[in-house]
Amino acid sequence: MAALGIAAVLMAGEAALAQSDPLPAWNDTAPKMAIMDFVRKVTTANSPDFVPEPERIAVFDNDGTLWTEHPIYVQLAFMLDRVKAGAASHPEWKDTQPFKAALEGDMKSLAATGEKGLMELLMTTHAGMTTDEFSAIVTDWIATARDPRFNKPYTELVYQPMVELLAYLRANGFKTFIVSGGGIEFMRPWTEKVYGVPPEQVVGSSIKTEFEMRDGSPVLMRLPQVDFVDDKAGKPVGINQHIGRRPIAAFGNSDGDLEMLQYTTVGDKARFGLIVHHTDAEREYSYDRDTEFGRLDKALDAASVNQWTVVDMKADWKQIFPEK
Amino acid sequence: MAALGIAAVLMAGEAALAQSDPLPAWNDTAPKMAIMDFVRKVTTANSPDFVPEPERIAVFDNDGTLWTEHPIYVQLAFMLDRVKAGAASHPEWKDTQPFKAALEGDMKSLAATGEKGLMELLMTTHAGMTTDEFSAIVTDWIATARDPRFNKPYTELVYQPMVELLAYLRANGFKTFIVSGGGIEFMRPWTEKVYGVPPEQVVGSSIKTEFEMRDGSPVLMRLPQVDFVDDKAGKPVGINQHIGRRPIAAFGNSDGDLEMLQYTTVGDKARFGLIVHHTDAEREYSYDRDTEFGRLDKALDAASVNQWTVVDMKADWKQIFPEK
Repeated sequence: MAALGIAAVLMAGEAALAQSDPLPAWNDTAPKMAIMDFVRKVTTANSPDFVPEPERIAVFDNDGTLWTEHPIYVQLAFMLDRVKAGAASHPEWKDTQPFKAALEGDMKSLAATGEKGLMELLMTTHAGMTTDEFSAIVTDWIATARDPRFNKPYTELVYQPMVELLAYLRANGFKTFIVSGGGIEFMRPWTEKVYGVPPEQVVGSSIKTEFEMRDGSPVLMRLPQVDFVDDKAGKPVGINQHIGRRPIAAFGNSDGDLEMLQYTTVGDKARFGLIVHHTDAEREYSYDRDTEFGRLDKALDAASVNQWTVVDMKADWKQIFPEK
Repeated sequence: MAALGIAAVLMAGEAALAQSDPLPAWNDTAPKMAIMDFVRKVTTANSPDFVPEPERIAVFDNDGTLWTEHPIYVQLAFMLDRVKAGAASHPEWKDTQPFKAALEGDMKSLAATGEKGLMELLMTTHAGMTTDEFSAIVTDWIATARDPRFNKPYTELVYQPMVELLAYLRANGFKTFIVSGGGIEFMRPWTEKVYGVPPEQVVGSSIKTEFEMRDGSPVLMRLPQVDFVDDKAGKPVGINQHIGRRPIAAFGNSDGDLEMLQYTTVGDKARFGLIVHHTDAEREYSYDRDTEFGRLDKALDAASVNQWTVVDMKADWKQIFPEK
């Protein structure tokens, strides 16, 4: 009994220790300290910086902030796979751009088709089915597709430090939202399981849908028309539309997040802005001002002006991906 | 001490009794029984109808379902008041339609200006300011404006039975959303206080907004352009856009809610649809197939086909408004 009692005390001690470090995948460098200081300030009752729970809104970009966006956006990989999946019933694609380039994995010719070509691929692969059908397609794909470099499912290429951060904020009364330039319906099927973020807390780009009775059953058809682009100056618009109040913390990694960070951190109340800087070519990727996917240029300059925290991935993250 | 002990027991008994009737403003008629049966079914673990908490989504129309919509929609009263408030700085309005009709309260001439006239009034009163400014205008107005018949603030003309229902569903693990044809930004400033529904759980019609730096501060400007009409077939679209999963319960009162009810109650799983039928001219209003505000015609016919619960306000509600 005494031994059991001691074991219990030891286990309780271990639990307390684990509790004292809610962010174990972060090194004990400045960004971790800044995050924990901010959370302490806004959650301490009677502090001048205290924020009531309903107003503790935190917004996270997805691509490059919560999961890997190199060598190409995951949704672009999905799109190319969908073209391949449809090729058998569209023999004409092998001779027609932009499909030919997509099928051949010829990124240069694909880029040459411009926005028009990409939009045609997007609408061909993302529209013309019901929302339920599209959700099933995404669910199947994300369960099986693998990143070529790491040979892992994409959902295992999420950043462990950021997954911990999401949980830490929620444990402190925050509501966590994703605010991504990616497709809202591409994210919703898996964000709850992977990030603990339910569909109603996902904001993203969208195409139009239309209510329709099909064989007496109500469905929403996905139409080949852009509805909303949740990127750059669109992010504050999407935040207002979906959340309806200004967040107090924003996390991004690229120029696409600049306006979201500005909108979140303005004013003299306690606010928090953070940028993930990809500096770790060995464990992940290294890029900033000169890349097609997740360019970080203006937002990096703005970070010092606005006192946003910049995460140096190589120095500040003990671990990049979850251990499975 | 003994007396205190007995008092405590009695109070506990009373509390238990109160707990056993979470819907005291409802008479013990069929709708109340149907609601409680449904909630019991979907919350009973190991029941074939059990629904996990994250999927317990309930959607509520606002006008005529949660608060009074006669003699005119509250937002229309707001719009007319805003025209009056702006008249001093627009002397030309007293000779120009649709403003002249609005200022004179001449509903017939106003109606004669058609949708074009109404849209002009809407954009004049709802656009051209920041989202924060508009929110402040609504907050001020809703705190002071009074309904002429009842001589009460509009926020006291909410239906006590429905306020209880919202709380009852939340106590049973539901997330409650408003899905209204009314303006999303007209509702958000007060729904949390009045209904316990936070801004991020309000879906409604919207005008476009644009991100702008104003004197170095990021703001969202409200533009005079319709963004989305969250009514009729638009309601399932709005639900999908904001919530991203199909609700399991929907509450409405008019043909504007028909598609939302269809979308929610399809399939063989446990689902719940309810229509509030305004049958109480004495305590509130009596109307259905023949009114401009909240017409209930097709949806009333659909209710019996689809086995939706119809609330006869006069017979089923013990109390209409909260006692203040």
